[in-house]
Amino acid sequence: MFKWNEGSQSAQAAILERPAVTASESIEKQTQAIINDVIANGDNALLEFAKKFDKREQPRLRVPSEEIAQSEDLLEPSLKQAIDLAYSNIKAFHQQQQPVSKKIETAPGVVCELKFEAIDAIGLYVPGGSAPLPSSVLMQGVCAQLSGATTVVLATPVNGNERIHPAILYAAKLCGITTIIESGGAGVIAAMAYGTESVPKVNKVFGPGNSYVTMAKQLLSQSVPGFAIDMPAGPSEVMVIADERANPAFIAADLLSQAEHGRDSQVLLVCNSEEIIALTQQQIELQLEALSRADIARAALENSALILVDDMGQAFDVSAKYGPEHLILQIDQADQYVGLVKNAGSVFVGDYTPESAGDYASGTNHVLPTYGYSKVYSSLNLMDFYRTYTVQSITPSGLVNLSKAILPLADAEGLDAHANAVKVRLENL
Amino acid sequence: MFKWNEGSQSAQAAILERPAVTASESIEKQTQAIINDVIANGDNALLEFAKKFDKREQPRLRVPSEEIAQSEDLLEPSLKQAIDLAYSNIKAFHQQQQPVSKKIETAPGVVCELKFEAIDAIGLYVPGGSAPLPSSVLMQGVCAQLSGATTVVLATPVNGNERIHPAILYAAKLCGITTIIESGGAGVIAAMAYGTESVPKVNKVFGPGNSYVTMAKQLLSQSVPGFAIDMPAGPSEVMVIADERANPAFIAADLLSQAEHGRDSQVLLVCNSEEIIALTQQQIELQLEALSRADIARAALENSALILVDDMGQAFDVSAKYGPEHLILQIDQADQYVGLVKNAGSVFVGDYTPESAGDYASGTNHVLPTYGYSKVYSSLNLMDFYRTYTVQSITPSGLVNLSKAILPLADAEGLDAHANAVKVRLENL
Repeated sequence: MFKWNEGSQSAQAAILERPAVTASESIEKQTQAIINDVIANGDNALLEFAKKFDKREQPRLRVPSEEIAQSEDLLEPSLKQAIDLAYSNIKAFHQQQQPVSKKIETAPGVVCELKFEAIDAIGLYVPGGSAPLPSSVLMQGVCAQLSGATTVVLATPVNGNERIHPAILYAAKLCGITTIIESGGAGVIAAMAYGTESVPKVNKVFGPGNSYVTMAKQLLSQSVPGFAIDMPAGPSEVMVIADERANPAFIAADLLSQAEHGRDSQVLLVCNSEEIIALTQQQIELQLEALSRADIARAALENSALILVDDMGQAFDVSAKYGPEHLILQIDQADQYVGLVKNAGSVFVGDYTPESAGDYASGTNHVLPTYGYSKVYSSLNLMDFYRTYTVQSITPSGLVNLSKAILPLADAEGLDAHANAVKVRLENL
Repeated sequence: MFKWNEGSQSAQAAILERPAVTASESIEKQTQAIINDVIANGDNALLEFAKKFDKREQPRLRVPSEEIAQSEDLLEPSLKQAIDLAYSNIKAFHQQQQPVSKKIETAPGVVCELKFEAIDAIGLYVPGGSAPLPSSVLMQGVCAQLSGATTVVLATPVNGNERIHPAILYAAKLCGITTIIESGGAGVIAAMAYGTESVPKVNKVFGPGNSYVTMAKQLLSQSVPGFAIDMPAGPSEVMVIADERANPAFIAADLLSQAEHGRDSQVLLVCNSEEIIALTQQQIELQLEALSRADIARAALENSALILVDDMGQAFDVSAKYGPEHLILQIDQADQYVGLVKNAGSVFVGDYTPESAGDYASGTNHVLPTYGYSKVYSSLNLMDFYRTYTVQSITPSGLVNLSKAILPLADAEGLDAHANAVKVRLENL
């Protein structure tokens, strides 16, 4: 337990410091080689990677549409209903984010409009690993569907002789995704940035991944004009702010649900009661015993911090300094404290709002800025699938009026031709 | 003149290809050295750079508040009025972009909200050079002012014994900016990313600059957690779509107003009339004679393309392929064609809407995606000064209902602790 008030400023900074995450030069070099291979060999490069990295004997790239169509028949009814309910809530929340053009006559005869267009071609990446991640499909796929993007590509790796889990396919089907590519890692990110025979070229790639995927996204977004990525990646994090009446079992469960994500996960408790902190530690030990991913959670807990503060005001100061990806408020009348929140990715208000609700089904997006980026990056939202542009329309008399601003400014900036573009028009009136 | 229909697909692609813009390794190395110097020596590094690069004998960093306050007394009245009018129009256009929180009950007892907070600390960069750029201050500064950012830093270099032009100071004053730093280049970008004695640390830096500034923004946004930049930089561009009744003098003036920006500017005309293209070429030669920056414009015109198309439909296809930063429509009843626009940064509709209107005073922002990034990046808008986050609040009965989605999904994804965070709560009811 770290007593905030007794720590020096540098000790306070140290307790909130995240472990450095730096990709090695070797990862950069390997990733660049993979990218180059895809540029040179297209589909063939992806097929070779599937054999080599994913141990596929007979790799294929495009999932046949019948497999997508039939996916729900292979699902447990309870899982199908779970996906349906999550989809419905996520869609409702994101639907209300549809952008609306804004038009205004800024001066007589000068009409300006802010308009939105869906980014044409979207790539969604869903990592593989020990378990399928249908929630990751829903969080990205609902946005792509609501934006009306012309092209949506979903890429996910498949290991050995396995097939893509029907939960992934069914989630994709709900989101109207018809192009699913059985390929993972840096290779398929490059394929989406450049396009190959089977993989359509896209303008923006979303989704988490391992360090090669992250590096590929970074390298490609810097080198391919017109190609962008969602946001910088980092280990997942939760901060719980709890008061003296909070339930230690709830706190422990929330900390553990973050800790099981990965060994590099960060979990922090900020609390005004030594007793609650001590009871939470006991609860953590108790609950750990039943977890299948206890090893991972234990490793993550090594990076954890239990911070004792004087009061809730100080707790929110600590939170703003840290900028947590997830912030859970287990405080009496927690909704009264939402106004104090700063620099958080997603906020969970009250004792009955666990992080896992937002991870899956409340409706909010679970793709969130982490690693301190919540001070400047947004949580994933529908606007990330749109771009904004402007339109202006000026009448001749509007231009006469506006020339009083344009001509002196062009003159001050030494740009004759800028002034001339107005003058030739005024002379013509 | 390039006849679109007579060109092969590869010739069509070639005519729209932008010259490669790749920063040399030497620029990367020098920029990194500058960044390291600022990290190690703070203000002193900036003062040394001012002596070395800007030939300042007695460099200073912070502009005294009296100089900002008195700036308007040193301005020509016509220039002051021009800045006032531009400020007013830009403010009106961006004010309507203020974000509004959105709250919805996605399911019974599950309330989710999309909220917005201003990015706390903002850095604005205005390059120096042969002329002051008050318009650049206004385009960035109005947004920072409207967002209510706590900290706004304006940095701009000053050469030799000059002082910052009063137009810069007055534009900053209108935008409520009180922290103005007389320092330029990669050094001051690093100072804003890390903070020095005189330069507050900021979360996001906006504004154009030379290749060192661009490189510093790129390097720092990758290496400093919680630090972001506006958008990738590239040479400025205009495309004019004109029909057979367009005025060649207007077309030429618009092409030249882009060409005078820099030798690397791109100017393209897409037109359905050979005669208009020929007349525009004559007008370009004629107007060039009177321009003070004719050399620069001539160099830029070397990269220009005059493209003959069959009809307006084809013209808009060409435009969507290219994705121009600025798109000018000199077409009969041009407003009927706005729906055909894709992948443009800012659109200028009709014969009396020159690009220079948007550069200075119509109200739209002149910070726009270029180099093909208009396929995926937005024009600068007020939302770039905010971040979005989510808040959810769930009642006990809401959680019971939601558990039907959370538990099967957590199970499918193999995340026990995610399920447990719900179970411990349900057991407590």
